Amino acid sequence: MDASRFEPQDPDFAERVRASFAKQGAMQTLGATLAELEPGRAAIELAWQQGLTQQHGFLHAGMVAAALDSACGYAASTLMPADAGVLTIEYKINLLAPAQGQRFRMHGLVLKPGRTITVAEGRAFAIDNGREKLIASMTATLMTITGRENIRH
Amino acid sequence: MDASRFEPQDPDFAERVRASFAKQGAMQTLGATLAELEPGRAAIELAWQQGLTQQHGFLHAGMVAAALDSACGYAASTLMPADAGVLTIEYKINLLAPAQGQRFRMHGLVLKPGRTITVAEGRAFAIDNGREKLIASMTATLMTITGRENIRH
Amino acid sequence: MDASRFEPQDPDFAERVRASFAKQGAMQTLGATLAELEPGRAAIELAWQQGLTQQHGFLHAGMVAAALDSACGYAASTLMPADAGVLTIEYKINLLAPAQGQRFRMHGLVLKPGRTITVAEGRAFAIDNGREKLIASMTATLMTITGRENIRH
Amino acid sequence: MDASRFEPQDPDFAERVRASFAKQGAMQTLGATLAELEPGRAAIELAWQQGLTQQHGFLHAGMVAAALDSACGYAASTLMPADAGVLTIEYKINLLAPAQGQRFRMHGLVLKPGRTITVAEGRAFAIDNGREKLIASMTATLMTITGRENIRH
Repeated sequence: MDASRFEPQDPDFAERVRASFAKQGAMQTLGATLAELEPGRAAIELAWQQGLTQQHGFLHAGMVAAALDSACGYAASTLMPADAGVLTIEYKINLLAPAQGQRFRMHGLVLKPGRTITVAEGRAFAIDNGREKLIASMTATLMTITGRENIRH
Repeated sequence: MDASRFEPQDPDFAERVRASFAKQGAMQTLGATLAELEPGRAAIELAWQQGLTQQHGFLHAGMVAAALDSACGYAASTLMPADAGVLTIEYKINLLAPAQGQRFRMHGLVLKPGRTITVAEGRAFAIDNGREKLIASMTATLMTITGRENIRH
Repeated sequence: MDASRFEPQDPDFAERVRASFAKQGAMQTLGATLAELEPGRAAIELAWQQGLTQQHGFLHAGMVAAALDSACGYAASTLMPADAGVLTIEYKINLLAPAQGQRFRMHGLVLKPGRTITVAEGRAFAIDNGREKLIASMTATLMTITGRENIRH
Repeated sequence: MDASRFEPQDPDFAERVRASFAKQGAMQTLGATLAELEPGRAAIELAWQQGLTQQHGFLHAGMVAAALDSACGYAASTLMPADAGVLTIEYKINLLAPAQGQRFRMHGLVLKPGRTITVAEGRAFAIDNGREKLIASMTATLMTITGRENIRH
């Protein structure tokens, strides 16, 4: 997975994406931070919390997906025009191992950018006592939206 | 979608599923309740909260997915043996409309039960000023797990 | 699944869709016929052939998917403008049972039409000695394309 | 994507997989050959044919998917026990560009092997006048089947 070929249209993409991230109540509930942001690439980190667990005390698959979906969405957003918004049309997630750990890192990477449709891939890792493990993979389809004020950013 | 043909193996499925639901920190964070539980069918309800939003104030897609995935998982769980656990292997969600509303209802329904693999479908609805709108659809693949204590229920 | 609410924009949708179907070499290879065509709904039928099998002599999953994807695409196409083309962006298929039978019927139904994005659902059935069995389900995301001559229809 | 870490359980995996491939009528219809076979990895090649086309003369998405699904399935099969069969439970495909070209190459790579469930990823490329282009990506979930004679291999 190599994003080095991507050229952003909006030189201020990082500022724009960080402002959008700060407005998401869900990211605050997850305790998530935007750990990495490059053209075509984003990473989100978060720590284990009781309020994010399923019945065995692992991170809930839905919370893994929420962070991974956001990583994919922000990866796509870095390549969009300054006045555009991004909508997730759909995604698919495979849960590869229990989300057992103290910290979690979700990577999003653009596989194919497009004027209307962008496809991104995600990988989620659990860090359990210092050991990193792949716990989920995602493919997300995102749409660039322009000219709709309520969807901007 | 008609689940009337499903016969539970475990007559106490409802008690078992409700106990599992109560142990999920993520469901408490979502403010979710188990509104319906029949053989092969489950519904989860929740109310809008700032802590569940994306950048436009709508429900975050990840939170819609978390509740919908749980509805699918519990629908599958109703048909499993008493000593079995259920694991989500993967799911796909299509986000059909913005999750704009005051309340949300997520339905899970078993499409094909199986000894090892169960496939369930989900539908998420937003209730916005009394009007119900389909906002997402899901297909989830679940696995019955037996003999692993830490995955039971 | 009820498609009765769909109103076609193009009164000649059936003629347009049938002309497109006739141009698909893949549909001839499958021996497929367009068995049903209503606004928001299409069904494709085909018979078992040795050239469509996997290693156990059942219909190959990829051939089930090819016919089911086409049923979803044509269901979407019925609701599009006369000068538009339809592109499959992505689909997901769950294979629910071996594709064992003498004949097969694939249904596509629009779940959510849209100006740009349409979501359709598919169901594939095997007819084995007169008994019909659900063998696969699909969710497909399709895009309306206008103004590109080589993608029209 | 690096499969170098995979150790096959069956030293004769290549012979076993090739024998299965030879029995698939669908692969003959596609004119497909098994171009590469390593532990956790497989590639399938095929040439354009009129009988594999959609309405614009490009390769039909369903035919791309059939070959890509097989590449994923054979990649998984290389890591399975000698007496096991492999079933595709589900897959998702994103169609990234029109399948325009003279030859096509589909790669399957195991992302996460498992005793029961294996997840593989696929990439399809079109070779158009010597230029290779990514046209599709897939994620497939496969199940190891043992003890069922009619599903072996």
